[in-house]
Amino acid sequence: MAELSQRSGVSIATIKFYLREGLLPPGTATGRNQADYPDEHLRRLRLIRALIDVGGLTVAAAKNVLQAIDDPAIYGHDLLGVAHHAIAKQSRWDRSSPQWIAARREVAERITQLGWQVHSEAAALDQLADAVAAMRELGQEDLLSLLDVYAPAMEKLAQKEVEAVVARGERAAMVEGVVTGTVLGEAILTALRRLAQEHASAGQQGP
Amino acid sequence: MAELSQRSGVSIATIKFYLREGLLPPGTATGRNQADYPDEHLRRLRLIRALIDVGGLTVAAAKNVLQAIDDPAIYGHDLLGVAHHAIAKQSRWDRSSPQWIAARREVAERITQLGWQVHSEAAALDQLADAVAAMRELGQEDLLSLLDVYAPAMEKLAQKEVEAVVARGERAAMVEGVVTGTVLGEAILTALRRLAQEHASAGQQGP
Repeated sequence: MAELSQRSGVSIATIKFYLREGLLPPGTATGRNQADYPDEHLRRLRLIRALIDVGGLTVAAAKNVLQAIDDPAIYGHDLLGVAHHAIAKQSRWDRSSPQWIAARREVAERITQLGWQVHSEAAALDQLADAVAAMRELGQEDLLSLLDVYAPAMEKLAQKEVEAVVARGERAAMVEGVVTGTVLGEAILTALRRLAQEHASAGQQGP
Repeated sequence: MAELSQRSGVSIATIKFYLREGLLPPGTATGRNQADYPDEHLRRLRLIRALIDVGGLTVAAAKNVLQAIDDPAIYGHDLLGVAHHAIAKQSRWDRSSPQWIAARREVAERITQLGWQVHSEAAALDQLADAVAAMRELGQEDLLSLLDVYAPAMEKLAQKEVEAVVARGERAAMVEGVVTGTVLGEAILTALRRLAQEHASAGQQGP
């Protein structure tokens, strides 16, 4: 375990915590207080760290994602749905409020107009409704017109992302691509957006 | 306070917590156990809820954003920097590790190549390096080629976003636009990305 800690840069206390929480499978016992952790453990540990530390997932959400990875019955298109569901944030919106219901309906209609083929109960539809309802409540409706810029940009981007992952062919590699692409890709995209905003703001408002 | 709670849908306990934490200014005392909360309080409360519940900010991060909003010395381009800094996530990466330093350098070079005018210490550069370093560590380098698709898409989008906010003219409205546009806009964008991925995946892998 000391070697695993050294190679991964993750403390022994944290590794023990992941073992206890079932995120990391136990090593192969080689003696009373010794266990072997093959390279697979190192890889899994890095994935856990990426999900939690970079992706900002909770331990429970990371566990859900890892379970999907380990379930060979989940593959292809379904895996994406499971990954999206696992990382969906809990909302504290009252989803029976008229404002939220109206936003949810509006969002579903827009997606239909775009011709996007998505599950009518997709977690991302609720997440989108959360944000749209909040924008309206705060009187920022004018910013919602940006949806017309966002949607085609995301459609183009998603086509390339799915292509890149599908091109891998092998299930294990595709699974890792879906998970890291969704979680780390989101971190990359939001960081780039902030940098692009800074650049645009410098150009339009002076640095 | 009961009225404020009813109009905002935020519990009295939560309102009291925000008052204690200094996120919400105290109302005007009108009697021993009575205080007046003008409409401004309702607006502020909705903004807090949007930042924390939809944007996923911590109470401390939300407080930083609100302080920037309330500081009239911060405006225009600077406000964007303050907002981005306030919402920047803590990373648990060892930022003295060779991998991270290499990723940080690579990221800065890419941004320079794009011709983007950003502060060399921008928090988003570190966030981008976090994600790029994690992608490399997990052996997902092939997905990094997507940066060439992400960057121009984000540049186009950011131009429109900054235009929409600058068009408002008045400081208070611009400030709210920067904050909600950054935080809620990110929620909208990531939700749309997941939906677009589902659509692309259905098309390429079958639903």
